[in-house]
Amino acid sequence: MPSPRNKLQALPSRDVPAVVVSRLSLYLRELRQLVREGRSTVSSSQLGKLLGVTDAQVRKDLAYFGHFGHPGIGYRCDELIAEIRRILGTDRSWIVTMVGVGNMGRALLRYKGFAEQGFRIVAAFDSDPRVVGTKIEDIPVYDTSELRNVIRQQKIQLGMITVPATQAQQVADQLVTSGIVGIVNFAPVTLSLPEKIGLVGVDLTTELEQLAFSVANRNVRR
Amino acid sequence: MPSPRNKLQALPSRDVPAVVVSRLSLYLRELRQLVREGRSTVSSSQLGKLLGVTDAQVRKDLAYFGHFGHPGIGYRCDELIAEIRRILGTDRSWIVTMVGVGNMGRALLRYKGFAEQGFRIVAAFDSDPRVVGTKIEDIPVYDTSELRNVIRQQKIQLGMITVPATQAQQVADQLVTSGIVGIVNFAPVTLSLPEKIGLVGVDLTTELEQLAFSVANRNVRR
Repeated sequence: MPSPRNKLQALPSRDVPAVVVSRLSLYLRELRQLVREGRSTVSSSQLGKLLGVTDAQVRKDLAYFGHFGHPGIGYRCDELIAEIRRILGTDRSWIVTMVGVGNMGRALLRYKGFAEQGFRIVAAFDSDPRVVGTKIEDIPVYDTSELRNVIRQQKIQLGMITVPATQAQQVADQLVTSGIVGIVNFAPVTLSLPEKIGLVGVDLTTELEQLAFSVANRNVRR
Repeated sequence: MPSPRNKLQALPSRDVPAVVVSRLSLYLRELRQLVREGRSTVSSSQLGKLLGVTDAQVRKDLAYFGHFGHPGIGYRCDELIAEIRRILGTDRSWIVTMVGVGNMGRALLRYKGFAEQGFRIVAAFDSDPRVVGTKIEDIPVYDTSELRNVIRQQKIQLGMITVPATQAQQVADQLVTSGIVGIVNFAPVTLSLPEKIGLVGVDLTTELEQLAFSVANRNVRR
């Protein structure tokens, strides 16, 4: 049964808590920063301090996936980066489509960061005849009616949803029946999806609201 | 003392848990969806069901901020939307700047969603002489050396950081000493900021990694 899912419960947790998987990304981010600073090794306490967690937490988090430290050395940064990328599944290339080429979609198609992370957008969809048939950053825009065919022919694995909120669920359903296994939802709605489909939500509106709250209430004494 | 802060601990929590503030945004999102569907009232159990939480949780979350329900009616959608926007601080207009007009910055400057939420970007900054002096979507791009003056003159309150990871901390420090009270960090690094500065991190890389993990591991039996 499809169930309502949102960012706070985006990951199927099975044995590894979602918060541990979130921290893997943050460890990766810090490790990359250390490499940029010329560091080749790091201890669990140094890595923990960068994130504001204890060294025990770092070791416990990584222990879900194996043993990565070296006695007397700590972690080798490049090695741990490669291991975490393998665990996360970003050491391979993913074939991606984007549905909705409005403001948000156009902006994201122009963003180069996805390709750098192995997320290769090969096709976009829209229903507006003025954009269908054009290319944006070399990515062809197809009519939404061709969704199923293009996804199957090009073996597309992941879908980004950048349509207005009112159309997002319908688009998600179409992506799922076309064989997509994971969705990044940029529309500000909670999607109902089968459990087996991966889902993350990126809602800039929500993020800005959280910032507004922290700023608007920073001088309130409770 | 500045301390490392990331998305998982972005909000100064005081009395209201950060997770409650996160859910306020999600309630707001569902209420907007209900209004689009023509609904004018909603019960706590209906609202909870849309988010996957209990009716008791909905009532408890909202009770941090006041009493919003009506006996025999539930919540009036428009009324609760207005109340939550007031609580979050998105019922007013915020004056915003963006630092870094590369791929990501350019994409976000073209995105209309910020203005719709009351986040008005009035100035952008970059150090590349090819973009300094130009306008993107009517927003002037200044040289980074003018940061302090422009922020003070235009009474800019919030800053979006869209520079490369290596420059993000330095830009954040400049924003803080120029009088900014809140930061949206799009760079994939953990920033150290004084406690009084509001901070949210939007890291697309991290989000994509989380999706890759959930998809790459969906068939793993643990």
